[in-house]
Amino acid sequence: MPASNRVIGFIGLGIMGRPMALNLVNAGYPLAVYARRPEASRPLADHGANVYPTPAGVAAHADVIITMVSDTPDVEAVILGDQGIASGAKHGCVVIDMSTISPAATRRFAEALASRQIDMLDAPVSGGEQGAIDGKLSIMVGGKTDVFERMLPVFECLGKNIVYVGPSGAGQVAKACNQILVAQTIAATGEALLLARAAGADPVRVREALLGGLAYSKILENHGQRMLDDNYTPGFKSKLHLKDMRIALEAAREAGVQIPGADRTLTYLDTLVEAGQGELDSAAIARMVWGRDSLD
Amino acid sequence: MPASNRVIGFIGLGIMGRPMALNLVNAGYPLAVYARRPEASRPLADHGANVYPTPAGVAAHADVIITMVSDTPDVEAVILGDQGIASGAKHGCVVIDMSTISPAATRRFAEALASRQIDMLDAPVSGGEQGAIDGKLSIMVGGKTDVFERMLPVFECLGKNIVYVGPSGAGQVAKACNQILVAQTIAATGEALLLARAAGADPVRVREALLGGLAYSKILENHGQRMLDDNYTPGFKSKLHLKDMRIALEAAREAGVQIPGADRTLTYLDTLVEAGQGELDSAAIARMVWGRDSLD
Repeated sequence: MPASNRVIGFIGLGIMGRPMALNLVNAGYPLAVYARRPEASRPLADHGANVYPTPAGVAAHADVIITMVSDTPDVEAVILGDQGIASGAKHGCVVIDMSTISPAATRRFAEALASRQIDMLDAPVSGGEQGAIDGKLSIMVGGKTDVFERMLPVFECLGKNIVYVGPSGAGQVAKACNQILVAQTIAATGEALLLARAAGADPVRVREALLGGLAYSKILENHGQRMLDDNYTPGFKSKLHLKDMRIALEAAREAGVQIPGADRTLTYLDTLVEAGQGELDSAAIARMVWGRDSLD
Repeated sequence: MPASNRVIGFIGLGIMGRPMALNLVNAGYPLAVYARRPEASRPLADHGANVYPTPAGVAAHADVIITMVSDTPDVEAVILGDQGIASGAKHGCVVIDMSTISPAATRRFAEALASRQIDMLDAPVSGGEQGAIDGKLSIMVGGKTDVFERMLPVFECLGKNIVYVGPSGAGQVAKACNQILVAQTIAATGEALLLARAAGADPVRVREALLGGLAYSKILENHGQRMLDDNYTPGFKSKLHLKDMRIALEAAREAGVQIPGADRTLTYLDTLVEAGQGELDSAAIARMVWGRDSLD
């Protein structure tokens, strides 16, 4: 079926969802949209999307329904709640949740939808607002392989690095792995720059030297520079990184494994958010490592 | 002065030192060499290097003396010990220590040499045996800037990413920062792959997905693959990484800063070495994170 015949429902038109939905419109898909705040739908309506007052309304008119909302309870409400997707969806449609939520809850939602002959993929992303605007998100997908393959043309409008990682929930697990690795690399970069400065080397030059070798990471490159500039404009907000770390630690607990480095970094994020700095980019984890606001 | 007129002394012809010395010979420098084990000098002698029975003997015939030995006490013995460099060196020569040792001890050695009108640079490297063979080491240099600039042609025979990072000892500080960042990124990668497997995602695909985004690091690429292959052929031996972590933690203590992530990773390395696995590549930190030998 050509793109233009398959209607895509899009629920959640925030910082990430809006540019993603626009990329689908620009690719030629007819869109059915819903947003909790009506004004969030306007830019899509201006591009010809049909706006519905409930997720059920969107679902009744769509072949594929993408959700991009804030947290596990929001996804649950949008899929299984009163006037949710499940109450309106056509048999044979596919739900793709691109939010970052709990893997265990994801499996539960997928089972509830399966009992209504609705397939679900979990497909969280990384790459941030700029990645969403540019259609260059990384997308980590869990669910049935045949459903993944059918949905690939949709994913290709949204991202560049699209990887199938396993059955239902596995996409969320991959995202959790991403977030614990990123958080710990931020904290370790903070320690390295702290040691450099305290022990008498120039942290600007140390970062430069380390970028040329085995210590290279995108975090040292991007977040290391933010630390040196003392500039924590997000980027990715600490309060959202904290939410994601809680999901990861809960998944580890359920799976019966210990990830103490991630646990310690969650504490840094928790302290940061409790101190009222949850709007700062999560590179500000370094401030918790330093025990002060800057390297100076 | 053209390369061929300036004699370079080279002390320490092990896995790293030998290929580095060969690159200097190939660049046209006459070499004077010393190795604790006489047979280690043979490949250099075959290429025309003059072999001397003591560091003092090397120093008496060289304008620049490079040391590449195992640890702080070895550098101390070679520079300040009986028949050491200090007892034989010509006024105005330059000592370049490329070993990885204590920054505080480095400053002490540099001061002792300065009192004899001998300049010293600390210039530890990263990039391993292959980097040494290819002349593509990263070199982190501490000392006086004018001495660094005079020695740049020598460094350019050995490495590609050559960065001046500050006064005497700063090169060793930069190397310590490199080692704590690498060790922690290894541990965090181990946690990410553990969570992936335990929570039902394919760790091979999760690594692949994460490589395409913000979580990219050379450690995830190289050491992550070693973990998945269960192949810990060094590479860089755990016992040497442990030595370097001890240097870093000592430097942090002296500078009055806390680096708890590095401290925890030192404990992993210590446990690994105590278990008789010090010869394994330090990617085997992951085994300590997992509490078992493999992900399976």
